[in-house]
Amino acid sequence: MTGLTRGFPRSEYEARVERAQGLMSKAGLDALLLTTEADIRYVTGFLTRFWESPTRPWYVLLPAAGAPIAVIPSIGAALMAKTWVTDIRTWRAPAPDDDGVSLLSDTIRDAVGASGRIGVPMTLESHLRMPLADWHRLQGMLPEVTVCGDANILRDLRMVKSESEITKIRAACQIANRAFARVPEIAGAGVPLDQVFRRFQMLCLDEGADWVPYLAGGADQGGYDDVISPAHDGPLRSGDVLMLDTGLVWDGYFCDFDRNYSVGPPADDIQSAHSRLVDAVAAGMEIARPGKTAADLFHAMDAVVTGGQGSGDAGRLGHGLGMQLTEGLSLIPQDQTKLRAGMVITLEPGLTLPNGRIMVHEEDIVIRDGGAEFLSAPAPQEIAVLEG
Amino acid sequence: MTGLTRGFPRSEYEARVERAQGLMSKAGLDALLLTTEADIRYVTGFLTRFWESPTRPWYVLLPAAGAPIAVIPSIGAALMAKTWVTDIRTWRAPAPDDDGVSLLSDTIRDAVGASGRIGVPMTLESHLRMPLADWHRLQGMLPEVTVCGDANILRDLRMVKSESEITKIRAACQIANRAFARVPEIAGAGVPLDQVFRRFQMLCLDEGADWVPYLAGGADQGGYDDVISPAHDGPLRSGDVLMLDTGLVWDGYFCDFDRNYSVGPPADDIQSAHSRLVDAVAAGMEIARPGKTAADLFHAMDAVVTGGQGSGDAGRLGHGLGMQLTEGLSLIPQDQTKLRAGMVITLEPGLTLPNGRIMVHEEDIVIRDGGAEFLSAPAPQEIAVLEG
Repeated sequence: MTGLTRGFPRSEYEARVERAQGLMSKAGLDALLLTTEADIRYVTGFLTRFWESPTRPWYVLLPAAGAPIAVIPSIGAALMAKTWVTDIRTWRAPAPDDDGVSLLSDTIRDAVGASGRIGVPMTLESHLRMPLADWHRLQGMLPEVTVCGDANILRDLRMVKSESEITKIRAACQIANRAFARVPEIAGAGVPLDQVFRRFQMLCLDEGADWVPYLAGGADQGGYDDVISPAHDGPLRSGDVLMLDTGLVWDGYFCDFDRNYSVGPPADDIQSAHSRLVDAVAAGMEIARPGKTAADLFHAMDAVVTGGQGSGDAGRLGHGLGMQLTEGLSLIPQDQTKLRAGMVITLEPGLTLPNGRIMVHEEDIVIRDGGAEFLSAPAPQEIAVLEG
Repeated sequence: MTGLTRGFPRSEYEARVERAQGLMSKAGLDALLLTTEADIRYVTGFLTRFWESPTRPWYVLLPAAGAPIAVIPSIGAALMAKTWVTDIRTWRAPAPDDDGVSLLSDTIRDAVGASGRIGVPMTLESHLRMPLADWHRLQGMLPEVTVCGDANILRDLRMVKSESEITKIRAACQIANRAFARVPEIAGAGVPLDQVFRRFQMLCLDEGADWVPYLAGGADQGGYDDVISPAHDGPLRSGDVLMLDTGLVWDGYFCDFDRNYSVGPPADDIQSAHSRLVDAVAAGMEIARPGKTAADLFHAMDAVVTGGQGSGDAGRLGHGLGMQLTEGLSLIPQDQTKLRAGMVITLEPGLTLPNGRIMVHEEDIVIRDGGAEFLSAPAPQEIAVLEG
């Protein structure tokens, strides 16, 4: 990825924190307590795959003014010290008797006093990444502190990307574009599906992915059955539709889009289904601009794929994207979130074929003033064809 | 991976659930509520990379008798139906107004009545994977139901592996063995570290990994500084020690071990540090058997690497391993967990070199009656050498 800079300047984090603190002031919050990978990375820049280990909790407290305070296992101190955070308090974890809880309690008392209000992300898509018993214990140690929701501050801020963030997501998309273009090298009739999955991840890495946290897909005669199963070891057959959907990461940011392939020449209904999915994305793009809503995008695409029947069981026709494979808004009828410039979104229409099988298609876009821009290189109407 | 069978027979899940229900009965629990990938997969067999998306919550209720009940987003119904679970209740998620909470509440009422006791994993290494506000709402809908800890039932059961589970972990280890043996193909003086990371993940896939959720490591002159940072793009230099630590997955089970490499001929202190780390693992193996404790393993290795000083900031000298990169016991002085046959553990001694840098070494073992068996092919005393 020559020419691209990793990380962000300090000013990016200062701007994020300043916006958060402005919203905290409006919401009457004295601090935010963050526990998940994406929330902590958003305000600190702490980027590591070590989160794969569930053993250690990590805490960041964002006070009403000033930089975040890290309360973390000592194994992470050296890496946290490379970020802009200077107040780093550590304990030697795991510590079964007191795994950072007293240290966190003391830190909260330092930062907000004995009776402040602490916001914690607690709505859709969030979770508290710490043992529930420790959470209860922490609250017991701070009887005068009020714990409440974070007024969706993290969710709302993370939904709108800076130009630097968009650049990273575009880089991830371009890596995936190149990997998808090389699928004919690794897939065709006779190749087992699990080998296709393995080789496709290798292509993503070869094209520059830092890692490949997500790959799903399916392959079967005239469509596929579901899109979250692991790959079976049966060979691709002529007449299969193969779908690969990847979330690969570059510098901590995801792409998330898929491509469909016909093994051998496509049947007419497969080609026309593919065209309809591409048309649905175009219908979404046509109206995607600030002021429209997530629901508007749903209805624009649903009109093309089902004639306005409300689509299928997947539940949504796209979602926000960024530091997580999915984050922020959902393209569903109930989500009235207004689009804003800088939002990065997937458009992901799906349809059920006459044989009961499904096809799903996905592109990544960014909302711009007055319109939207593709971050993935949009697929043509014609479905790609593999050796049959 | 010719000759290895994916998945488990139904009897494996029946045995797990029967053991869990026996312990539930002793603990006076009418049901367990499970929310995390590993806990849910342990009782159901539900295996998918879709957990990478944090949007949707997934719930499994294990009643006092009978099979688990799945309360899940409809997008997962087809895959869950392939497991042994037959009672699958779905909602179309995401549903901002009621994201499965009413359905879960009804299910709990069906299964345990209006006033039962529900156990939820809430101690070390656990978290509740659902929005905290939904958790509060659920408790509000079930005022007579008592929520308490799960008496560590999931943690304790998962710590002791069946022969079928051990076979999968061994398969993952053998894939990593082969990938580590091929590192000289991809690494040597002049190769940027981030390219080594990328190519090493490709080797893991090429040798049969389903995916590579974890890769960490380091490289610097005469040791490295920390082991959780992402790779920088500087080239390897003669005199560097390169360490690669991978958690790759085969059929849902992890290996987790590392290898050190000297770029060019090793300095004497590097070779002797490597020998000492191998000796420390041998000291752990020497005493590893049922009846010894996690703390005993710590002390046996710590005596070799620090002369009994209590080791460094990493906090532990190994840990349990299985469906997660790290799970179960920790090799620390405070962990008095007794070793049992079938426990799979990493031995992970580390030491600080005179120049302040560190070296870490790791192997995977399984506790057997009267001893222990290596699952990774143990490294020789001599550090491997790359082109300098």
